[in-house]
Amino acid sequence: MADLVKVVPISGFPEWLPNVRLVEERFISIIREQFQLYGFTPIETPAVERMEVLTAKGGMQRQIYTLGRPAEGNSETGLGLHFDLTVPLARYVVQHAEELVYPFRRYQIQKVWRGEKAQRGRFREFYQCDIDVIGRGSLDLIHDAEVPCVINSAFSALELPEFQVRVSNRKVLGDLLSVKEVEEDQLIRVLRAIDKSHDAGAEETRQSFEEEEVAPELIPAIMELIDCETIDDARRALATVNAPTAGLDELQSVIENALTLGMPESRIRPDFRIARGLDYYTGVVYETFVRGHEDWGSICSGGRYDDLASYFSKQKFPGVGMSVGLSRLVDLLVQSKLADVGHNVPTKVLVTTQDRSNYLDKYLGLAKMLREEGISTEVYLEPDALREQIGYASSNGIAIAVIAGDSEFEQNCVTVKDLEKREQETVPQDNLINYIRSKLAVAKDA
Amino acid sequence: MADLVKVVPISGFPEWLPNVRLVEERFISIIREQFQLYGFTPIETPAVERMEVLTAKGGMQRQIYTLGRPAEGNSETGLGLHFDLTVPLARYVVQHAEELVYPFRRYQIQKVWRGEKAQRGRFREFYQCDIDVIGRGSLDLIHDAEVPCVINSAFSALELPEFQVRVSNRKVLGDLLSVKEVEEDQLIRVLRAIDKSHDAGAEETRQSFEEEEVAPELIPAIMELIDCETIDDARRALATVNAPTAGLDELQSVIENALTLGMPESRIRPDFRIARGLDYYTGVVYETFVRGHEDWGSICSGGRYDDLASYFSKQKFPGVGMSVGLSRLVDLLVQSKLADVGHNVPTKVLVTTQDRSNYLDKYLGLAKMLREEGISTEVYLEPDALREQIGYASSNGIAIAVIAGDSEFEQNCVTVKDLEKREQETVPQDNLINYIRSKLAVAKDA
Repeated sequence: MADLVKVVPISGFPEWLPNVRLVEERFISIIREQFQLYGFTPIETPAVERMEVLTAKGGMQRQIYTLGRPAEGNSETGLGLHFDLTVPLARYVVQHAEELVYPFRRYQIQKVWRGEKAQRGRFREFYQCDIDVIGRGSLDLIHDAEVPCVINSAFSALELPEFQVRVSNRKVLGDLLSVKEVEEDQLIRVLRAIDKSHDAGAEETRQSFEEEEVAPELIPAIMELIDCETIDDARRALATVNAPTAGLDELQSVIENALTLGMPESRIRPDFRIARGLDYYTGVVYETFVRGHEDWGSICSGGRYDDLASYFSKQKFPGVGMSVGLSRLVDLLVQSKLADVGHNVPTKVLVTTQDRSNYLDKYLGLAKMLREEGISTEVYLEPDALREQIGYASSNGIAIAVIAGDSEFEQNCVTVKDLEKREQETVPQDNLINYIRSKLAVAKDA
Repeated sequence: MADLVKVVPISGFPEWLPNVRLVEERFISIIREQFQLYGFTPIETPAVERMEVLTAKGGMQRQIYTLGRPAEGNSETGLGLHFDLTVPLARYVVQHAEELVYPFRRYQIQKVWRGEKAQRGRFREFYQCDIDVIGRGSLDLIHDAEVPCVINSAFSALELPEFQVRVSNRKVLGDLLSVKEVEEDQLIRVLRAIDKSHDAGAEETRQSFEEEEVAPELIPAIMELIDCETIDDARRALATVNAPTAGLDELQSVIENALTLGMPESRIRPDFRIARGLDYYTGVVYETFVRGHEDWGSICSGGRYDDLASYFSKQKFPGVGMSVGLSRLVDLLVQSKLADVGHNVPTKVLVTTQDRSNYLDKYLGLAKMLREEGISTEVYLEPDALREQIGYASSNGIAIAVIAGDSEFEQNCVTVKDLEKREQETVPQDNLINYIRSKLAVAKDA
């Protein structure tokens, strides 16, 4: 026999055991349900795109995994794995432009791949859950307020710990720099310096602005701006250099509309250090942090792009969206012991089979009855002793075992064993559903 | 400005418009729910595996897409995209062997990739929905009966047209050939010839058995066997050469147990031409066809493997499973007009905004109320005329539009427009939920 192939994990490609995967899958279901509740419609795009599509904007090029077909002599197929869901969306909208209805509100929950260094909260393969609203020609600013509200609903339904969406608008810095002449590429370099200011000291940040040749009289205003926590404070900072306030007015309107749309005040605030989205975004930008776990980085980011598909079409498709970094979020919650990972299986009830040769029909009948009530039920089908069957249920975190043999079936009863409380009771079969329902309801409340 | 990047489909990588994607996503939800109802637990494995894992068994090697990272000078990473979910399962079970509980019942719903010629029902990227039960050391034969029953429940919940699971057992042919001496590789070649007999004439099939040097006295028995539609007929065919019946007994037991487990008789039958699974399977094999659409090929296949992980471990992990070819199934149903693809969005109600400047709060309040009842609701947020807003709803297949302005709000009413029946009624806001619920219930029954 040939040597065994060694089996080892692949760095950066997370693989959960069933207990964590159950959490991830429940999260995806809840997020999907919330997105649909707001009328977002699902799309999926292939995992691959043509390389010219992926690289149209530059930027992420270094991180792309390409596809080869060596068996056919093609080390290159011209295809690569997508690194986000925004480039595929842009391509999708252009390709199907005439078949879509605008505003086009889509969600997309898929894995993406990035060949970067794996580290905590940063994977090479991970789930993104995106929502975007795409207009044709124009898109009202109120969508910029709705998008974080949808995310708020999703995170509330997930029963996440407290979180906060931080919002900025890259036009605010543009307005400030516009007091002196400013080129687009200088603006982008200054935004990058602001992005780095999270980890840098004040003096270092100031120096970086000098290096980017920001007019010296503007630097104190920028330094003041990036520390502001309210719109009013930012107004004062802009006022020190008589900068225009169009960007800030827009930001204020987005935050006020979000409150009208039901966003709790504690969950949204301006943060002028948020400078992400150099590549796509042209207006509002968002990042979202779990309170007390800001060091994990943003778990949901996005923004407004005035022209999503400029590389693929002359038509203008403005859009706004956010993307949940689901794999990071799950990892954060599990590592921080904030997620319930006590169960290996979805099963609520194990029907044991202590006397399969006589009663298989009856065991299967009990399971059928429970499943018809939507109760996840497994029949133990291996020829093992009852003790082992109960052990199987315990190891998997199954709450309830149903046990029956001669004495129970003679009386049309079954014994229900509560494996958490370690107690059991014999109940009439007619009453089994109600009895188990009440048990499961208690377990859920506990 | 640079030239526009051309946007064209990639052959073999399906991409649905939202109306079909809604069907696919609903199917996945229902299948997942049914798998969970039987206590199968979700796992997901990375899209990639090491090449030595993917190629351990040979066979599919030619179809593998490999991954490169040219930006880092690696045209080869040693990784490839998985071509099914069974090889990853084998690797997963061995890698996490000590952390799993046996029998390990898992489902796995993911895309797989195969670099083969794209044609009808055959994609290069497609969804598989797999269930498998894996034992450690041994696994009772009754699981071979349970697995098609779970599939039956899933397909019933999907409200598929009539379908049929066809079952065989490669031991039956082994028993027949064992009358004369037979080598494993000859058995496999004969199985291949049987597999091809679907498309070949009787004479051609007979010749192929001669070419494989089957003992001439056995050929009539094989010819008779592959035409059998019942176990009894197959017994007679085996009897003509006094072949042992262990394999047939096993097959009979699987079918009888499946009936006990609730499988309708019309949905399962023996078919001795089913010879798939040359690579993994060692016992029972299944293929599933939509009645009247057999030419699309099997939509759910699988079987029993005595040792899933023989290439990765000296431990024995017997298993049995089936895999739904979901992309093919969706394509078949859509192309054959058997699936409802009338809606572009999950939205049930559009709240129109004819007077946003005065009543935005109220429109949002109506939407909130509807969403709290689980009714998918969208507020129209573009500053368009009411006529356009209604047009948006119609184009997307949204059944109901809520309309309100001065006159309605003064009386605490709203107008509810039924876009399918083209009729409208003004109802008190207090009664809106009940009114819409009854509308939606009627629409669902229709």
